[in-house]
Amino acid sequence: MSQDAMENRVLSAVRQRREVINGAVGDDLPMAEPERLYEATRYIIQAGGKRLRPTMSLLVGESLAETEASSLDYRSFPALDGGEFDLLRAAMSVEAIQSFTLIHDDIMDEDDLRRGVPAVHVEYDTETAILAGDTLYSKAFEMISDTGARPEHEVAAMHRLASTCTQICEGQSLDVAYENRTDVSPEEYLEMVRLKTAVLFGASAAIPASLMGADDEVIAGLHQYGTDIGRAFQIQDDLLDLTTPSEQLGKQRGSDLVEGKETMVTLHARQQGVEVDSLVDADTPEDVTETAIEEAVGVLEEVGSIQFARDRARELAEQGRSSLAVLPDNEPRQLLDDLAEYLIIRSY
Amino acid sequence: MSQDAMENRVLSAVRQRREVINGAVGDDLPMAEPERLYEATRYIIQAGGKRLRPTMSLLVGESLAETEASSLDYRSFPALDGGEFDLLRAAMSVEAIQSFTLIHDDIMDEDDLRRGVPAVHVEYDTETAILAGDTLYSKAFEMISDTGARPEHEVAAMHRLASTCTQICEGQSLDVAYENRTDVSPEEYLEMVRLKTAVLFGASAAIPASLMGADDEVIAGLHQYGTDIGRAFQIQDDLLDLTTPSEQLGKQRGSDLVEGKETMVTLHARQQGVEVDSLVDADTPEDVTETAIEEAVGVLEEVGSIQFARDRARELAEQGRSSLAVLPDNEPRQLLDDLAEYLIIRSY
Repeated sequence: MSQDAMENRVLSAVRQRREVINGAVGDDLPMAEPERLYEATRYIIQAGGKRLRPTMSLLVGESLAETEASSLDYRSFPALDGGEFDLLRAAMSVEAIQSFTLIHDDIMDEDDLRRGVPAVHVEYDTETAILAGDTLYSKAFEMISDTGARPEHEVAAMHRLASTCTQICEGQSLDVAYENRTDVSPEEYLEMVRLKTAVLFGASAAIPASLMGADDEVIAGLHQYGTDIGRAFQIQDDLLDLTTPSEQLGKQRGSDLVEGKETMVTLHARQQGVEVDSLVDADTPEDVTETAIEEAVGVLEEVGSIQFARDRARELAEQGRSSLAVLPDNEPRQLLDDLAEYLIIRSY
Repeated sequence: MSQDAMENRVLSAVRQRREVINGAVGDDLPMAEPERLYEATRYIIQAGGKRLRPTMSLLVGESLAETEASSLDYRSFPALDGGEFDLLRAAMSVEAIQSFTLIHDDIMDEDDLRRGVPAVHVEYDTETAILAGDTLYSKAFEMISDTGARPEHEVAAMHRLASTCTQICEGQSLDVAYENRTDVSPEEYLEMVRLKTAVLFGASAAIPASLMGADDEVIAGLHQYGTDIGRAFQIQDDLLDLTTPSEQLGKQRGSDLVEGKETMVTLHARQQGVEVDSLVDADTPEDVTETAIEEAVGVLEEVGSIQFARDRARELAEQGRSSLAVLPDNEPRQLLDDLAEYLIIRSY
């Protein structure tokens, strides 16, 4: 199959499941009092998002159930030991955690835009943003404790979700700390990315398997798959900032570089002796010219930093794909395999 | 038994259990990397606190187990259906949630002091305070999903903890919203207090019963007990601000009044036509004189607002005590009964 055909197939599968997930917001995150608080909890979710993590949860469930997707009811999904459970609610739980981290991170990083709209702390206020994040946090645990799966499987899933949240906090804490250091190694960066970003992909793949009563080995393999491709996803994000035209990116190309955000690329370049801080002569993304970015990227290419990051992303994606051997060989597994590839070839 | 004897007995029981709880912090909230984050998660816990909520959890467990406290190991605590579980970890889970709410509330309310030391966002910074709260949040769910209780009981306990956290967020959101309103009724205030403060007392009493496998009726009774005395506790806090000498209070008497914080007392007074906002002529607690506070309290007494609040606190405490009938009649139940009374007669 050609790359284009693969890409179309993945995007179509993601789109179908995104619609299912978007349709579940009203049921699993119902409006309640105080209205302003609940509006704020839904605001970023409703502003958009690819829903990659919950889509991954649905695909893992579909593969393990070995049933045609069209005949499946995600709300009464077959577990491996005969019972049924609400797979869609488990997937929404992961999306709620993702949204909570975005809201709190935007306060901490003073990022005023998210998904093309003002961040929650800007659209509402900081108090409401803290509380909206805290509410999504507890809602995620309400959801994961109410899937109807067997209690021992639910306990395992909840423990996974809780320890994942702890790791996300550790990762965000490292990210904040690394802002004051210029000697962070690519290995330290990758570990920060594992905690801050990748373990939630790992949880998204592992939790449905836990709830269905899959073997420990299967759960571990899926967690590894998610964690590997989550890291590949972040490295690709870092690369896109440098290599995708501003128009397609939806923001100034090279923004990370101008704002001094360290990535796999810049940390490698530092190790090669590049003076990363003086690569572009601008203080804000608005002040930078395309030529200046072109030249900076040229330097980063010359010292091998772009290729270094590409190689790391590819290695991690390949490694993640190999872990999929724990799943039955079927269409949803193929989609998870394609998804790994898609994440590192996507151009936005 | 005289009031003094009762008070001594309660305080001694609370002190004993507080020591057990303080000794568990190292085990249940172990230090990890990043060090600064984990130090911040422990900072407010180590700064002090009465540990009323986890003490309540231990006492409920002791009463249901019907065993002499001296022969009990809280880490291998007898469930009602024969198994064992870690009651102390469940109690710590509640304390972790309490600490998380204090840390986030202090950011939102811009309160710079907590337990006599700078608040986390002052001692560290706002980013670290948000993350320390988020970490305690996930740690609480890690703990409650790792008590060794039967899975169906653990799921029930986790669901209770999660829905309690949602209610706390709702309550804090109402509290913030009420700051911009002067027409809040005492009933609305009491509902806000139920959500923001009292349901965590309810969860502290109900969760150990859930984990032990108690009947639904017992669990419901204990939740009612905690929720009632939690509200009584808050109203007593409101009263203490007005009636306890500054020395004993550890801060300027009447601070709430000067800072315009609405309480059961002021909301009742407004309904009686008192111009609460002009009761004291000072902008900060530092500027106020004892005579001014005396006079203001005199007005509040005259219109019956002090008595109104006292009556509400007593009613709620009595109502809470009556719910204890679901417990076996033994020494720990008597201590829970005494605790309800103590919370509304305490003078600090």
